[in-house]
Amino acid sequence: MSNLIQEFNNYRSKMNEVILGKNNLVMKRLWNLDTNTYEAGALDVATKEMLGLVASMVLRCDDCIKYHLGKCHEVGITTEQVYEVFAVANIVGGTIVIPHTRRAAEYWEELIAQ
Amino acid sequence: MSNLIQEFNNYRSKMNEVILGKNNLVMKRLWNLDTNTYEAGALDVATKEMLGLVASMVLRCDDCIKYHLGKCHEVGITTEQVYEVFAVANIVGGTIVIPHTRRAAEYWEELIAQ
Amino acid sequence: MSNLIQEFNNYRSKMNEVILGKNNLVMKRLWNLDTNTYEAGALDVATKEMLGLVASMVLRCDDCIKYHLGKCHEVGITTEQVYEVFAVANIVGGTIVIPHTRRAAEYWEELIAQ
Amino acid sequence: MSNLIQEFNNYRSKMNEVILGKNNLVMKRLWNLDTNTYEAGALDVATKEMLGLVASMVLRCDDCIKYHLGKCHEVGITTEQVYEVFAVANIVGGTIVIPHTRRAAEYWEELIAQ
Amino acid sequence: MSNLIQEFNNYRSKMNEVILGKNNLVMKRLWNLDTNTYEAGALDVATKEMLGLVASMVLRCDDCIKYHLGKCHEVGITTEQVYEVFAVANIVGGTIVIPHTRRAAEYWEELIAQ
Amino acid sequence: MSNLIQEFNNYRSKMNEVILGKNNLVMKRLWNLDTNTYEAGALDVATKEMLGLVASMVLRCDDCIKYHLGKCHEVGITTEQVYEVFAVANIVGGTIVIPHTRRAAEYWEELIAQ
Repeated sequence: MSNLIQEFNNYRSKMNEVILGKNNLVMKRLWNLDTNTYEAGALDVATKEMLGLVASMVLRCDDCIKYHLGKCHEVGITTEQVYEVFAVANIVGGTIVIPHTRRAAEYWEELIAQ
Repeated sequence: MSNLIQEFNNYRSKMNEVILGKNNLVMKRLWNLDTNTYEAGALDVATKEMLGLVASMVLRCDDCIKYHLGKCHEVGITTEQVYEVFAVANIVGGTIVIPHTRRAAEYWEELIAQ
Repeated sequence: MSNLIQEFNNYRSKMNEVILGKNNLVMKRLWNLDTNTYEAGALDVATKEMLGLVASMVLRCDDCIKYHLGKCHEVGITTEQVYEVFAVANIVGGTIVIPHTRRAAEYWEELIAQ
Repeated sequence: MSNLIQEFNNYRSKMNEVILGKNNLVMKRLWNLDTNTYEAGALDVATKEMLGLVASMVLRCDDCIKYHLGKCHEVGITTEQVYEVFAVANIVGGTIVIPHTRRAAEYWEELIAQ
Repeated sequence: MSNLIQEFNNYRSKMNEVILGKNNLVMKRLWNLDTNTYEAGALDVATKEMLGLVASMVLRCDDCIKYHLGKCHEVGITTEQVYEVFAVANIVGGTIVIPHTRRAAEYWEELIAQ
Repeated sequence: MSNLIQEFNNYRSKMNEVILGKNNLVMKRLWNLDTNTYEAGALDVATKEMLGLVASMVLRCDDCIKYHLGKCHEVGITTEQVYEVFAVANIVGGTIVIPHTRRAAEYWEELIAQ
């Protein structure tokens, strides 16, 4: 696994454990709810993950982008499709989304190189 | 056509005419590009309109939400699907998205009542 | 009850009913969780409502501000205290918070005039 | 004076009086500082007002936009120049700035019609 | 002192010196005003620091979060209380606040380990 | 050339190449349009770059800030002028802009030391 992917996953797991270890009920329930949100329903998982990706991009949250890129890769979204999501994010959110798109593109390259 | 929909469309058309009448080239090109963005490609139009909707919701732009709700309605997105987009937006963007969801829900009711 | 307060409450109730009537599970659970968040715990309700207020102000959500102002009034926060919350919001979030502070001040005047 | 301009100015004056009447020192000082910020220095007033305008646009604060448009008009910024500020705001901030640009364009028309 | 805390404090001091050395009056006054904002008044310092923390979290400013966590620790806020502030921030601001909560949790662990 | 400047430029070039290599038409056109936006028109290039800088600061995009600082330096904006842009950004956007101002100040020192 590439460095970027492994570092992201390791830090995420380590800190999630710290946070959940404090037993704050609201935090725990929000995280469960977050999982429910992306499960198949009237929309399939691939569509929902692309929704999560574009929302993360326009809000410019690099870690959220990485998380949803990982999921998009898992469910078989193609590079051409991912770049159309990038395009929507850049048009809606403007050129301030470009630096986040650079980091997203870098992470995507590592995902497809695995 | 309902009041909300007609008011939104009328004001939008009137002001677009004012803005485009000033011949600012960057504004014109951005608007053309905006149209291109939602055309069918590796992703279909319905998916792209839902991407535009969720991005507009987390960025909390009521007029953008109305615009994409109108398009989602045109391309046949169902109420159940629209509410799954609302759910992603509210989870990613938090409870500050709720007031925008109320106005979105009101507009959607008018769209489906037409 | 003043017009501003009544209009806010009526619209909120009407649209919450529409939204919850669609039976989207994620939306329902998020709203329950939202209620849990402001219950007394290691922090008392007054502190939590002020946290909700300042967060709503820096994120510039007028309806969220109104909601938390109503709660702050209910739990006995004084005008002087509310203005110290306004001050934190304006310093952290900058002068773009001022127009929202004007609407917050107007709503607060109606709450204390009841 | 047009309706939009007069309504904006009246509400602004009325609520500023309410807020300043509460004698919150931080709020008072922030407002003085806000005035200092746009005074001539190494940059002239016109440039500073355009900086205030573009910042207000990308942060999507309609009242802040109106305030700076009023000032831009006072110091002699032309329509062509204002639309170049609009263009920068729309490119940096994306298509979510468009609805705010519509309202800005409407207000500008009233300012130049006086 | 831990690495994270020392690095944050050192960089902050070094760059504050550079910025203040340029003698920009608005910057200097804003920083003084920032200090005034968190002084005891109608609300005590602990409450104000928690307000500063939650505002920094929903606006997703990691350095601002670190600063207010340091202050919260100084004035005796407990871990349980800090996590209730985290919970409000995550509910109001949504799951995009989670990555910032991870970094906040890491910094808090270092503060309480001193 | 300093480390900060070289690292920024290298990463930017490398990732722009990756992104443009995917031939997404919307991304390509947005980037061309971005270039057009800052060309001399009714406003000169220096003014437009300062507009781009202040917009990037209030939206808190460090890479965008670096890019526009580089351009401001190229077109001869002075340190005193840049700090007046910083001041507008900090007043409009609030103290959450301060950490970005620290990084901007650091980058500016490297630009003027070249």
